[in-house]
Amino acid sequence: MGALRLPSLSSIFASSSTAISSRSPSLFRRHCQLRLPIRRISAANFSAQSTAEKELAPGIEDPDVNQKSRVQDKDRVITPRSQDFNAWYLDVIAKAELADYGPVRGTMVIRPYGYAIWEAIQEYLNVKFKETGHSNMYFPQFIPYSFIEKEASHVEGFSPELALVTIGGGKELEEKLVVRPTSETIVNHMFTQWIHSYRDLPLMINQWANVTRWEMRTKPFIRTLEFLWQEGHTAHATLVEAEKEALQMIDLYTKFAYEQAAIPVIAGRKSRVETFAGASKTYTIEAMMGDRKALQAGTSHNLGQNFSRAFETQFTDENGQREHVWQTSWAISTRFVGGIIMTHGDDAGLMLPPRLAPVQVIIIPIWKKDDEKTGVLNAALSVKEVLQTAGIKVKIDDFEQRTPGWKFNFWEMKGVPLRLEIGPRDVSSGSVVASRRDVPGKQGKVFGISMEPSVLVPYVKDKLDEIQSSLLGLATSFRDSNIVDVSSYDELKEVISKGKWARGPWSASDKEELKVKEETGATIRCFPFDQPQGTKTCLMTGNLAEEVAIFAKSY
Amino acid sequence: MGALRLPSLSSIFASSSTAISSRSPSLFRRHCQLRLPIRRISAANFSAQSTAEKELAPGIEDPDVNQKSRVQDKDRVITPRSQDFNAWYLDVIAKAELADYGPVRGTMVIRPYGYAIWEAIQEYLNVKFKETGHSNMYFPQFIPYSFIEKEASHVEGFSPELALVTIGGGKELEEKLVVRPTSETIVNHMFTQWIHSYRDLPLMINQWANVTRWEMRTKPFIRTLEFLWQEGHTAHATLVEAEKEALQMIDLYTKFAYEQAAIPVIAGRKSRVETFAGASKTYTIEAMMGDRKALQAGTSHNLGQNFSRAFETQFTDENGQREHVWQTSWAISTRFVGGIIMTHGDDAGLMLPPRLAPVQVIIIPIWKKDDEKTGVLNAALSVKEVLQTAGIKVKIDDFEQRTPGWKFNFWEMKGVPLRLEIGPRDVSSGSVVASRRDVPGKQGKVFGISMEPSVLVPYVKDKLDEIQSSLLGLATSFRDSNIVDVSSYDELKEVISKGKWARGPWSASDKEELKVKEETGATIRCFPFDQPQGTKTCLMTGNLAEEVAIFAKSY
Repeated sequence: MGALRLPSLSSIFASSSTAISSRSPSLFRRHCQLRLPIRRISAANFSAQSTAEKELAPGIEDPDVNQKSRVQDKDRVITPRSQDFNAWYLDVIAKAELADYGPVRGTMVIRPYGYAIWEAIQEYLNVKFKETGHSNMYFPQFIPYSFIEKEASHVEGFSPELALVTIGGGKELEEKLVVRPTSETIVNHMFTQWIHSYRDLPLMINQWANVTRWEMRTKPFIRTLEFLWQEGHTAHATLVEAEKEALQMIDLYTKFAYEQAAIPVIAGRKSRVETFAGASKTYTIEAMMGDRKALQAGTSHNLGQNFSRAFETQFTDENGQREHVWQTSWAISTRFVGGIIMTHGDDAGLMLPPRLAPVQVIIIPIWKKDDEKTGVLNAALSVKEVLQTAGIKVKIDDFEQRTPGWKFNFWEMKGVPLRLEIGPRDVSSGSVVASRRDVPGKQGKVFGISMEPSVLVPYVKDKLDEIQSSLLGLATSFRDSNIVDVSSYDELKEVISKGKWARGPWSASDKEELKVKEETGATIRCFPFDQPQGTKTCLMTGNLAEEVAIFAKSY
Repeated sequence: MGALRLPSLSSIFASSSTAISSRSPSLFRRHCQLRLPIRRISAANFSAQSTAEKELAPGIEDPDVNQKSRVQDKDRVITPRSQDFNAWYLDVIAKAELADYGPVRGTMVIRPYGYAIWEAIQEYLNVKFKETGHSNMYFPQFIPYSFIEKEASHVEGFSPELALVTIGGGKELEEKLVVRPTSETIVNHMFTQWIHSYRDLPLMINQWANVTRWEMRTKPFIRTLEFLWQEGHTAHATLVEAEKEALQMIDLYTKFAYEQAAIPVIAGRKSRVETFAGASKTYTIEAMMGDRKALQAGTSHNLGQNFSRAFETQFTDENGQREHVWQTSWAISTRFVGGIIMTHGDDAGLMLPPRLAPVQVIIIPIWKKDDEKTGVLNAALSVKEVLQTAGIKVKIDDFEQRTPGWKFNFWEMKGVPLRLEIGPRDVSSGSVVASRRDVPGKQGKVFGISMEPSVLVPYVKDKLDEIQSSLLGLATSFRDSNIVDVSSYDELKEVISKGKWARGPWSASDKEELKVKEETGATIRCFPFDQPQGTKTCLMTGNLAEEVAIFAKSY
């Protein structure tokens, strides 16, 4: 199982290499207008399946959105989203140069453009974690195997997914080491040594780290053998405080998803069946992807005293009594990048929310004659400086070996929210043309925006805000039009079979929940915090139900 | 070898638990003045040797310099540096709460205060790397074993130190996976797929990651089984460019060491014997620790075409010829935190350079009567806000269960560069008292500094700058007074036996270099860039020498 190669994607997605005529007409038109060579559509150029295949599957490196590589024209076209969502997803990741497969089955190389999105996520969350009283630190990734066995449901949940180090420094180890799948056990081992009295509480920490889970079915960003995440861990004197913390963190994630990623997640509580291995309660944010599958985009767990009892993490309370601490843990991972791609992307490629976009504004200088060049480039440069000074992430594409049309297409595919075009006539009139990524064609284009900093800067900032809200608005409409209220199991089955989310009252057993999964492929994504008023009747049993649950197929 | 426990430090450092009378008198006096209980000095409270020992070896958690834990008085006293440098080092790490041992032998938990120093290092370097054209990305940590074997000297250098994953998802793997000790091999595997023509070059990336080396003799921060670092990797079209890059990065590290860490490193080239496994040339920055041992604090390698030939990383040049790329790699790790501790620390504990200090200014409000309390605390709070607004990292210690004297001592031990004291009389006169960490006692104390923001802010900023330069100045004098020019092997031996660094002309063989190591314990740290003028005669052979080398014992 070691360094197995991924099967060639071209064989899996053979259907995507169909004739051009099957593409969405609008995409086809766009490419024709831009005189881009039409080539075979395929997910196969997601490079690095194996060294042997490299001639067939070249990747195109674009470090820091470096433009040099773009002389290679081939395979810029991506599978239409409507035609094959999965092939589209892989195409976008390959062609926008977000990630590539690593040499070991199921591992992923996060390329500079993809990593920059993760850095933007980190930047926001890191500040918020500190504002809410958490400190960063770092725990070793090697965990003695015996630790994992200490918490019964934890070992049950994680043992099938473990990677084990058995040899170190050329010698067989006496105790196998687990490469951390999550850190609750080692965190508790250390907390037990640091926590003595109530004065040591709350203890609130976070770490940014890599984790390993030996997943069988992998998908870039969504599920990989190794991924990056932050994991928060806290210990409290009371259950009430731990519960408050777990809720605070899921709220923070919710706010992040809405305000930064423009993803209208639904926050709620997991069912018992779906609760984290070792937690008392799991809170989640669930996002609807473009194919209407649900993505669990972040979780926060109230761990109760499960780990503190297993590891004897105790404190002396104000009355001198020894008590076990109450704990939480919470995480968001590089999976979120996959969520952004699958929420906002369209047939033209990636579409990034301005607040997380590595490049918010791309400037395309346009000239035909040599005597126009200097004026246009100077104007582009001065516009860039003005925007940069105002804190906007801006880039000029002045690469001469590409046509403006090619560049428009390229940066749309990269998901850059706003494009500014500057030609000789714009230079004369001291203005620029702006095009929105989220509004295709002429509708998204505005002419004659003054280059004057006092006009241009607020214009660009407003436009970026507008795009940010517009993406959230679109995603929210899409989500709402795909959640259907159901009051019976038959209705639920019908809704799920149409690929939508079903919301209905639920008070049935775990067994019945598993039956739904088996029969429909859908699981309870959550009992949303936002609950309808009034009495409810369980869609399965007809008994009284306290809450509605949301059912959906998921990643 | 797996989860072996570290031997109890108290047994190793039994000598440090000697009677109080053997301590440096000044430290003793200081503690008496502050009415601190004098306790047994020992490195044994570096916690977490094992779960079983936890009652004997409690750690004291201090997340984000949280003050609650400080009600525990015990073991605040550290071994004097002059008495036992190693015990002092471990005491400082334990008592300033920088790190703790992990449960697996040789692993380290980096605690919030220690991690904050690493974050300050990251913040500076990350910006500089981007400014010099590098992009962050992320490579998987699991490397097929066969990759490591491809570059002959690389496998020779690293194979004794590898941790191997042999089981994944419950099954024996077909190919063992190496947990990355460094990423040259996997980087080249990917570069081979991304690099096609000269237009794809230079390719310049960096990653922040954890790495694993199965070291036998470990020491917190300095040498641990797993550590954190950044590793830069670049590919170029020519040797000249690669050499320029390797030098640029060692220069960047040198500037960082001098300007941020106040460590006057000596930059130079490694001897062939000491060159990185797989590199053509290794450049290094060597720092002199307080015990005059050398610490290799950062390296930059010109890899030549060693890895590109092993992995067939080729490009088509402007003439259509296929050529192997020329490469570099360079790294700084959490080891640097150890370097900061051992460069600046003194008998009172840690001493942090202001530019990397998690807390630059600690405010101690002082009151006796209850009616003084509000005024003092309000003044402290307003001073804090003023400084915070000016971008200074400031904290108030208003914990009521501790005396001001205890707090002075505590924050000195934590290495905070500047302390502001505010008492009732200071409130009346609208002034504060400032005390420098680097100038002990009354000499470092200035009274009557106005609280007026227009006075206080520039005063504090100037003072921090002054401390920063003063630390660099002190370390530079110490370094220079401990490097001795030698012209014969006998002189070299004498200098090394005194614990100093020897600098002398060297053109002898690798064999003779190894003889020096065997006979004196010293190695060539580097051929410094800064070379004396004039003809030189090799101290060993009497032959003409082009360069002087620096010999020293090292970590």
